[in-house]
Amino acid sequence: MPRRFRLVISYDGTDFHGWQDNAGVRTVAGELLTALDPISRGTEIDLQGASRTDTGVHALGQVALATLETTLDSAAVASALEARTPADISIVSCQEVTDDFHPRFDAVAKRYLYRIWRGESAPLFKSRTCWWVRESLDVEAMNRAARLLVGKHCFAAFRNRSKDEPEDTVRTVTNLEVRARGDWLWIQAIGDGFLYRMVRNLVGTLVDVGRGALEPERVGEILESSDRREGGRGAPPQGLFLMEIAYPDSGDLEVVDDFPRF
Amino acid sequence: MPRRFRLVISYDGTDFHGWQDNAGVRTVAGELLTALDPISRGTEIDLQGASRTDTGVHALGQVALATLETTLDSAAVASALEARTPADISIVSCQEVTDDFHPRFDAVAKRYLYRIWRGESAPLFKSRTCWWVRESLDVEAMNRAARLLVGKHCFAAFRNRSKDEPEDTVRTVTNLEVRARGDWLWIQAIGDGFLYRMVRNLVGTLVDVGRGALEPERVGEILESSDRREGGRGAPPQGLFLMEIAYPDSGDLEVVDDFPRF
Repeated sequence: MPRRFRLVISYDGTDFHGWQDNAGVRTVAGELLTALDPISRGTEIDLQGASRTDTGVHALGQVALATLETTLDSAAVASALEARTPADISIVSCQEVTDDFHPRFDAVAKRYLYRIWRGESAPLFKSRTCWWVRESLDVEAMNRAARLLVGKHCFAAFRNRSKDEPEDTVRTVTNLEVRARGDWLWIQAIGDGFLYRMVRNLVGTLVDVGRGALEPERVGEILESSDRREGGRGAPPQGLFLMEIAYPDSGDLEVVDDFPRF
Repeated sequence: MPRRFRLVISYDGTDFHGWQDNAGVRTVAGELLTALDPISRGTEIDLQGASRTDTGVHALGQVALATLETTLDSAAVASALEARTPADISIVSCQEVTDDFHPRFDAVAKRYLYRIWRGESAPLFKSRTCWWVRESLDVEAMNRAARLLVGKHCFAAFRNRSKDEPEDTVRTVTNLEVRARGDWLWIQAIGDGFLYRMVRNLVGTLVDVGRGALEPERVGEILESSDRREGGRGAPPQGLFLMEIAYPDSGDLEVVDDFPRF
């Protein structure tokens, strides 16, 4: 009888072709499946991730469900996985769950952070985990635009097409905010869900506002157009971190003021 | 008439085959020479580094002397270099100097830091800038051993051979100390000079002491043996940072309590 383990996983996305298992390329799910294989003694394993992060995107709180045959308990599965996964994956927690948990469909909210460096010289030791924007950025204007995006809206103007994309393009963004910490900018996004590439497209549009290429008010019009051609360029993947995913059994996601130190 | 510029340079050593210019491989000096080429309008450039850091070793305060024909002043050379060097090199300062400055021979002291991670799970986002030691480490024993190494000694037991290595193996280490900061350990080394691979060999030996493979007192005997075969394994390059180099015109190097946040 297969058992089900809910995993919380962190990874440095730089050297992965995203989350999703794919023949011939290195992916986070692929590495996890390889690590799970001896734990299940070669019997079939099913692995579902909550979020299909793209190439280069990082996660501190990705959630996945692993279904497999094993005699190990959840603590032993966690240690075995931690020992068998490469150094750019870290197992935060592992918990055995009942049959009715689904990491993607049961998720009720997600929190993302996006990091921007606006210093004069290169962000040494951090180039893999931020976007270096050389133009000066008007944070106040960015936040004015961000406030227009908060709420329940059709976000079709900010999503890229993908074959798995749902038809329903309405999402509720409960928080979208830009904070400056010296030469760093952190953009926090919390919502009940985000469409394909939506966070990066929102960030790219806010940066266009920040550097003066777009009036803050224009962002409201782009949103209402529901037309991707109206939206700004997307931000590059290496600044994006999937921070947390909430389920009905966890509390609401809160705005966090303390940003990771890396 | 060629002009001489004293450069202070930082770099993430991960993707370089060390400092020294070498045909066919990417080196820090090679990238700097490429960036200097348009500044000197293709005339001959001489570039001397204070320290030939190895593949994977980082620097926050490498010093170099660039001798070239140019009409630019030192501020313009600095900006042009910063603009032309890749994101893993950063120009800290540039200053025009008189003829008699030599970055290697005039150096009177160097300060290095070595960073160790001793957490249970992988040092995510930091694997390129630390050594992950999984065994538990006795910091007090490491510091007892470190104190035996401070002073003026023949350090032949802690150097690797290299063709450029000087015959004189006596160096004065003024400070060698291990500090714990949660799951991080920082080893600071200050001295009038360090032989080839000496810092990494000292760190590797201290770690052998920390994990109980070597008695602290044994380190004094290894030092006295002057025999490299007696010394411990070397620590890997990615934890090592060349922090500062002192010259007669700068003050003494001081022990620093505040470690970089990366």
